[in-house]
Amino acid sequence: MKIGIVGYGNVGRGIESAIRQNADMTLAAVFTRRDPKKLEIKTPGVPVYSVEEIEKKADEIDVLILCGGSATDLPKQTPMYAKLCNVIDSFDTHPKIPEHFEKVDYAAKQTGHVALISCGWDPGLFSVARILGSCALPEGADYTFWGPGVSQGHSDAIRRIPGVKDAKEYTIPVDKAIKAVRAGETPELTAREKHVRECYVVIEEGANEAAIEHEIKIMPDYFADYDTIVKFVSEEEFKKNHSKMPHGGFVFRTGKTGYDKEHLNVMEYNLKLDSNPEFTASVILAYARALDRLAKEGQTGCKTVFDIAPAYLSPLSGEELRKKML
Amino acid sequence: MKIGIVGYGNVGRGIESAIRQNADMTLAAVFTRRDPKKLEIKTPGVPVYSVEEIEKKADEIDVLILCGGSATDLPKQTPMYAKLCNVIDSFDTHPKIPEHFEKVDYAAKQTGHVALISCGWDPGLFSVARILGSCALPEGADYTFWGPGVSQGHSDAIRRIPGVKDAKEYTIPVDKAIKAVRAGETPELTAREKHVRECYVVIEEGANEAAIEHEIKIMPDYFADYDTIVKFVSEEEFKKNHSKMPHGGFVFRTGKTGYDKEHLNVMEYNLKLDSNPEFTASVILAYARALDRLAKEGQTGCKTVFDIAPAYLSPLSGEELRKKML
Repeated sequence: MKIGIVGYGNVGRGIESAIRQNADMTLAAVFTRRDPKKLEIKTPGVPVYSVEEIEKKADEIDVLILCGGSATDLPKQTPMYAKLCNVIDSFDTHPKIPEHFEKVDYAAKQTGHVALISCGWDPGLFSVARILGSCALPEGADYTFWGPGVSQGHSDAIRRIPGVKDAKEYTIPVDKAIKAVRAGETPELTAREKHVRECYVVIEEGANEAAIEHEIKIMPDYFADYDTIVKFVSEEEFKKNHSKMPHGGFVFRTGKTGYDKEHLNVMEYNLKLDSNPEFTASVILAYARALDRLAKEGQTGCKTVFDIAPAYLSPLSGEELRKKML
Repeated sequence: MKIGIVGYGNVGRGIESAIRQNADMTLAAVFTRRDPKKLEIKTPGVPVYSVEEIEKKADEIDVLILCGGSATDLPKQTPMYAKLCNVIDSFDTHPKIPEHFEKVDYAAKQTGHVALISCGWDPGLFSVARILGSCALPEGADYTFWGPGVSQGHSDAIRRIPGVKDAKEYTIPVDKAIKAVRAGETPELTAREKHVRECYVVIEEGANEAAIEHEIKIMPDYFADYDTIVKFVSEEEFKKNHSKMPHGGFVFRTGKTGYDKEHLNVMEYNLKLDSNPEFTASVILAYARALDRLAKEGQTGCKTVFDIAPAYLSPLSGEELRKKML
C-alpha cells in the first residue's frame, strides 16, 4: 500500500512514524503547502511535493491521508482530494460531521473513489466503543470523559488573547464523576462536574496576569462553564514541562439486563496516550488499510468507522484472525 | 425481526429478557429438547416447541439463536440448524473455533443461509477489542484478564469430584499484574501470576474435606497452575451467597509510537457484569440484527464478529449514527 501524506504537522509526522510499524505500507510522498524544497522529512528517499502536484501524482498513491485541521483545512481539502484519490481524514468538529460527510460522499462518488472521514480515537475508536455499548446495552447511559490531556483547541483559544505568548490547556476528568459512573450510579453531570481545565500560560513582558486570567475564565464555550485553573509560568519552565501532547479518555456504557432489569452491567473503554497525534495517526493507518481494501472491492463514496468491519483493519487473514484473536 | 431460541437455559432466558429492550425484535418461538408441554417461559403467548419442529418452523424465524453448550451441543447443532435457518451461537472453545467455523460455513452455504459463531463478550466484544488494539498499536503487547467472576467450566469440574454436592469457582484477576500492565511495563506473566481461583464447595455428608481440597488443587489445566483457594460452606450459605453469575474482565493493548518508539500508549477495555449470561445474550441479539441484515443483502456462509461493521449492530440509520455517536 502506497500512502501519501498531506500536511507535515504533528499528525503527518505521526503517520510517517507509524508506517514504519506496518510492513504492508510504504510512504510514497509528502505533500505540503509550504515550499517543498524547504521541508525536510525524516524518511530518507521519499519525495516532498507541493499540494499543487497531488492531481499529477494521484495515480501513485493508494490512500492519501489528510492531516490538516478541522476548522479550515479539511472542509475544503477532503471533498477536493476525494475527487482525485482515496482519502482519509480526522475531521473532528462533531456538529459539522453530517454536512462534511455529504460533501465528501458526493465528491468521491463522482470519480469512483472511496473516502473515510472522522478517523482517529474521538471521533474514531471512541465512536466504535459508543456504538458497541449502545447496542450491547440498549437501555442505558453513555458517558465520555476526555483527558487527562492537552486540548489543542483550548490551548489555541488562550493563545489568541493579547499579551499571551504561549499556552497549554490540560483537560482533566473529575475523578468523583468517573467513580460514580463506574459504580453504575448514572449521575446527571454538568460540564463543570465532568472536567476541570488547567491552563499553563506564558505572558509577554508587561502583560497583566490578573486581566488575562479573568479573560480566560470568562471565555464562553471554552472555559466559562468549567472550574478553570490558570497558572503563569516562565518560558523556560513551559518548554521544559509542557511541550508534550499526552491525551486520553474514557467511554462508559452502563445499563441493566434481566427480565425485570435487575442486573447492572458496566462497559468501560479507556485510553492513556503519551502522544495524541501519534496514536491518532496509528489508528488512521489501520483504517487506511481498510479503505484500500474497500477501494479494491469497487466500493465508492464516503464511509466512517461505523462502516468498517474489524477484519478489514488487520494485515492478518480471516483464518489467522479466527485462530489467534477470536 | 423474528427471533427463535434453541435451549431455555441461562443464556436462552437472557435472550428472552433482552428482546424486551429491542423494539425491532419479537420472540417468535422457543425450541427445547425437553417436553415442550412441561416448559413454561416468561413471555406470554409465545409457543414452545420441541427441537424436532425447527425444520417445520424455520420459515417463521429470521434468526435462530443457539443457546446450548460448547462442549457437546453447539458442535452438532450449529452446522445442523445452519442448513435450515440463519443461526448465531456463542461457541467459546477457542482452540476448536477454526474447525467449527469450517463446518458451519459449509452447511450455511449449502442452503444459502448466513451464520455467526462465537458471539458474546469473550469470544465477542473482547475479540473486537483485541483486533482494534493490535491494529492501532501494531508493535505492542496484548493481555486479557478474566473476572472477578464465576467460571462455569471450573465450577462444573469441581462438581464432578465424588463427594461434592455443589460448587462455584470465582476467577479473580491479580491486581498487581493488572497494575503492571496498565503502567505499560509489559510483564511476562504466568497463569499463576494472572489469576487466582477461589472455590466455594458444598460436600455430601461424610465426605472428606481435605481429600476434596487436594483433588481440586492438583487438577491439571483447571487448577494445578494457579493459586487456588478452597472454602467449604453449608448448602444454606451457598444458596444465599453464591447463586449469582457475575463476570467481567479486561483487555489491554500497550505499545509504543513515535519515529524512535519514544511514546507509550495504553488501551484498556473492561467489563463488570452482574449477569454474565444476560449480558452475553444482549450482545448476541445486537449481532443477530446484523445477521438479519446480511441475510437480506444475500450474504451466505459463516461470519464472526470480525466481519461485522459496527453500523450493522444498531437500529439507528447511518445518518442518525453519524449525528449522534460519531
